[in-house]
Amino acid sequence: MIGKLNHVGVATPSIEESVKLYRDILGATSIGEKFVMEEQGVWVCFVNLPNSQIELIEPYGETSPVRAFLEKNPKGGQHHVCFEVENIEAARDDLVAKGAAVLNGGKPRIGAHGVPVIFVHPKDMGGVLVELMETPTSHP
Amino acid sequence: MIGKLNHVGVATPSIEESVKLYRDILGATSIGEKFVMEEQGVWVCFVNLPNSQIELIEPYGETSPVRAFLEKNPKGGQHHVCFEVENIEAARDDLVAKGAAVLNGGKPRIGAHGVPVIFVHPKDMGGVLVELMETPTSHP
Repeated sequence: MIGKLNHVGVATPSIEESVKLYRDILGATSIGEKFVMEEQGVWVCFVNLPNSQIELIEPYGETSPVRAFLEKNPKGGQHHVCFEVENIEAARDDLVAKGAAVLNGGKPRIGAHGVPVIFVHPKDMGGVLVELMETPTSHP
Repeated sequence: MIGKLNHVGVATPSIEESVKLYRDILGATSIGEKFVMEEQGVWVCFVNLPNSQIELIEPYGETSPVRAFLEKNPKGGQHHVCFEVENIEAARDDLVAKGAAVLNGGKPRIGAHGVPVIFVHPKDMGGVLVELMETPTSHP
């Protein structure tokens, strides 16, 4: 089922500071502009690597789901891993049939790449918050 | 400096259980055999994806550095992110010059892919334990 590792989600208290880290310290050469995803309560910024991406996420709004993560990890840290799947609804149905807890009542949302995504609770995923996204038709 | 996202390191109390998860629940189709890296104190097993890998790591021996991680995260979780660099010593020198804390006194070790690696302390990397590895001459 899972295909490419599309991105690693990294939570940060400050996308600006993280961009400095990836650009000036680690020497990443392709970093997008930050943008807001209001419904998800996050600012998002992609660090583009030749084969994958780091998705920097910073809380947006007081009820952002990333706030609890940052309370436990004030400097930030690895938040989720995202794998591509061919069909999000087929993937969701398969996971639910196998007993995995799909968040948001199993309802796909449109993610930062403009394609539908679901999240699977870390308790069923070896402590890893797993995002599945439908393979985008064009890669950045 | 950083090139491809070579792998995401995922700590687990049981590689066998994690293999079941990635194979039977997430449907990964290419998973290697587990092997021990005595000096690093870990069992290792790679889940191969089309563009990258998940590196499952389980403690080996009583002094394994992964034990402390699992005490905090008993189900396991994301442990590190590994980026490829062209030359590990040049990367190390560059990071040290920029003030980053390179573990093991800055001395590269041979990693699970048979090429030299270094680890950078998460305190300088936005809470993420960053591994840098010299690009392998052949990818799996």
